[in-house]
Amino acid sequence: MNLILLREEQKQTPTQYKLTESQMKHVTQVLRKADGERIRVGVVNGNIGDAIFDLPSGLVNIVHLDALPPKSLPLTLVLALPRPNMLKRTLTNITAMGVKNVYLIHSSKVEKSYWQSPVLKPESIENFVFEGLEQAKDTVIPTITFCPRFKPFVEDIFPTLMTPDVLGLLAHPYNAKACPIDLKQPSILAIGPEGGWSEYEVGKWQEAGVETVQMGDRILKVETAVPVLLSRLYPA
Amino acid sequence: MNLILLREEQKQTPTQYKLTESQMKHVTQVLRKADGERIRVGVVNGNIGDAIFDLPSGLVNIVHLDALPPKSLPLTLVLALPRPNMLKRTLTNITAMGVKNVYLIHSSKVEKSYWQSPVLKPESIENFVFEGLEQAKDTVIPTITFCPRFKPFVEDIFPTLMTPDVLGLLAHPYNAKACPIDLKQPSILAIGPEGGWSEYEVGKWQEAGVETVQMGDRILKVETAVPVLLSRLYPA
Repeated sequence: MNLILLREEQKQTPTQYKLTESQMKHVTQVLRKADGERIRVGVVNGNIGDAIFDLPSGLVNIVHLDALPPKSLPLTLVLALPRPNMLKRTLTNITAMGVKNVYLIHSSKVEKSYWQSPVLKPESIENFVFEGLEQAKDTVIPTITFCPRFKPFVEDIFPTLMTPDVLGLLAHPYNAKACPIDLKQPSILAIGPEGGWSEYEVGKWQEAGVETVQMGDRILKVETAVPVLLSRLYPA
Repeated sequence: MNLILLREEQKQTPTQYKLTESQMKHVTQVLRKADGERIRVGVVNGNIGDAIFDLPSGLVNIVHLDALPPKSLPLTLVLALPRPNMLKRTLTNITAMGVKNVYLIHSSKVEKSYWQSPVLKPESIENFVFEGLEQAKDTVIPTITFCPRFKPFVEDIFPTLMTPDVLGLLAHPYNAKACPIDLKQPSILAIGPEGGWSEYEVGKWQEAGVETVQMGDRILKVETAVPVLLSRLYPA
């Protein structure tokens, strides 16, 4: 945690927030802050600033909230639902990297059981997202949408995202050109499951107007491929 | 595993290798190969090709080894020793990305106990490295060197790596210029621990001739920062 992220429900007065149990533990045991010391805080979907730690009450008193959160990436990420353990790390990492719009979709090579994983529960998703925000000193919660059917996503939802300024990219290492570097426009990037997209799916993506792109000979796990592709498209 | 990687000690005759227990399991249960089917294999530090699977004997018979492993990155990575769990994933990921020269060094913010972790044992390191190679269809084992003291590394070993064609880069987000994109020369990249390099260490790095570089406002975990920086320096 490089930032203590404060939720609306922690607010006691306009300038006072009650720390959660895990925040208290982090502030006292990891940051080793004593009563009256300053800590770096952010307000969910708001600004970043300083607060004074009040140890006896477990409250923080906001001094100022004068810094904006860091810039977001101009990218919508569409991910074939990864296996639960990989999903955890991937969600935390993409949140830390500044992705604000994520669609987790089905694909024929996604195991159906993944959709039943407790990792997908809202409170669990929120934990991974908060971990990413607190890591990157960000406050803006990404929107994560689950689409457990491929066809309705690609036929109905995807076209609404493909506005004229947006470049649609499909990570697919066959007959593909090299993924662009340092892109100057917004994009939607779709990344397949282990084992890749099916032929039918690639056809549907192409009908929807995406370009297929690849990033070299090496096959990477989703949790590595995502930061690699984001960093290449939008080197900060 | 996108490749079955065969070690010298598995060799029975010039064209026959005995699969290990875990390779047998992978070939039969994940790849679901039957007796007589082809599988993709590579020979450690050698070529890639096809072999015929002989189920009863647990052997594979090489048909040909006609493909070169994918290109390596022209980069030496110097990492302050990460916490053991992060080290595991980082080693697998950087191996998959094609890093062939890694120094794991001490830094004042590295907990001394990390050096005692069983994760650092040769057989454990080999497992993570093999996982990365088999993921990326590579065969070339990276050299991983442990340097449990900072000063001897930066004063004695580092200068021998800084040949005239090599650019020395230190990831350090203070007073730093943006990390280069799509670098056309070899480099050495040094990445610090959680909490960053100490002032003394940054001074020693600068004496050694490195440029300090950063990659934006966001603080990323080592396991994310490494693929992000490698992808930015050398987009494949």
